[in-house]
Amino acid sequence: MLRAAQECFAVRGYEGTTVREIARTAGVDAALVHYYFGSKREVFAAAISDALRPGEIGPAVLGGGPEGIGERMLRAFLEQWSSRERREPMLAVIRSAFSHEEAAVQLRHFVTTEVLGILVRAIPRPDAAVRATLVGSQLIGLIMVRYIVRVEPLASADTETLVRLFAPVVQRFLTEDLGTEAV
Amino acid sequence: MLRAAQECFAVRGYEGTTVREIARTAGVDAALVHYYFGSKREVFAAAISDALRPGEIGPAVLGGGPEGIGERMLRAFLEQWSSRERREPMLAVIRSAFSHEEAAVQLRHFVTTEVLGILVRAIPRPDAAVRATLVGSQLIGLIMVRYIVRVEPLASADTETLVRLFAPVVQRFLTEDLGTEAV
Repeated sequence: MLRAAQECFAVRGYEGTTVREIARTAGVDAALVHYYFGSKREVFAAAISDALRPGEIGPAVLGGGPEGIGERMLRAFLEQWSSRERREPMLAVIRSAFSHEEAAVQLRHFVTTEVLGILVRAIPRPDAAVRATLVGSQLIGLIMVRYIVRVEPLASADTETLVRLFAPVVQRFLTEDLGTEAV
Repeated sequence: MLRAAQECFAVRGYEGTTVREIARTAGVDAALVHYYFGSKREVFAAAISDALRPGEIGPAVLGGGPEGIGERMLRAFLEQWSSRERREPMLAVIRSAFSHEEAAVQLRHFVTTEVLGILVRAIPRPDAAVRATLVGSQLIGLIMVRYIVRVEPLASADTETLVRLFAPVVQRFLTEDLGTEAV
C-alpha cells in the first residue's frame, strides 16, 4: 500500500491524491487503507518514513566518531540516492512537500523529529540542531541540483567527485567551530 | 500579466495552470497573452526570468574581486529573499519546477544559461561551471530548509547568522582549490 501511495503522490502530487485512489492503485479496499493508516495525511507521513529511512544512515555514519564523518555521511547518502528504486519514493515525498503546505508540514515534522533527532543525539554539542539543519541544507540542495533541476556538471558527476566536493562542507558543518555554540 | 502568471503557477502549479486562466487573472484576453508570450511554456520562462533576476546580484557581488565574494553573495541573495514581494514569485517558479518536468526543463535552461552564465563569466577558472553549480546547490538548499520545509533554527535565523554560517561555504566553492580544475 505504501508503494501505491508513493506512486500516487509522485504522479498526482499531494493535493491530487485521495485515499480512494491509493486503495485502487494498491488493489485493496479504501477501508483497509483507512484501517492501517487513517487519513491521507497519515498515509503521507508513513510514505515519508518508508522513503527516507534515516535509520539506515545513522549507525554506520555516526558511530565512527568525528573524524571523516563528512565523507562517511556523503557516501551513505549518495548510496541511498544512487538506487533508482530508493530514489523514486524519496523524490515523490520531497516533490509533494514542495508543492503543498500540508505535505510540507508532515515532512518538517518527520525531518525535525526523526532525521535531525538522530543527528542531534549523535553530536554532543549545544549547537547540534543548527549543525544538523546546515548539513540538511547542503544535502537537499545537492539533491535539487542533481536529481530535480538536473544542472550539469553536478547532475552526472560520479560519487567520488561528489564526495570530494561536498564532504569538506559537511565535515565543517558537523565538527568545526561555527561560532554558534550559543545559538 | 507576469504577476498574474506567477500567481496562477503558485496556486495551481504548472500543470494546473492554463494560458486562459492567466489571462482571466490578469483581466485580459487570452489572445493577448499568446501575442506577448506564446505558449504556457514561454509564459513560464518569462515568469522565471522576472522572478529570479540574476542580473540584480551579478555586478555588485562579482565586480568586487575574489576576497569576500562569499559574504557579498550571501548578503545579496538573502536581501532578495527577505522581501516577501520578491520571495513569492521566486517560490512559485521553484515549486512549479519541482513538481513538473516541463517546468523543471525551463528552470534548468534559465539557470544554466543565465544564472550560471553570469557566474561562469565572472570566475576566471576552467572549473567555473562546477563551482557555480556548487554555490547554487548550497543556496537552493538554504531556501528549501528556510522557506519551503521551514526547519528551525534555520527558518528564523537572522541575516547575520546566515552570513556567518554560509558565507565560508560559498567562498570556498568559489575561490579555494577544489581539485576540479580538470573537470
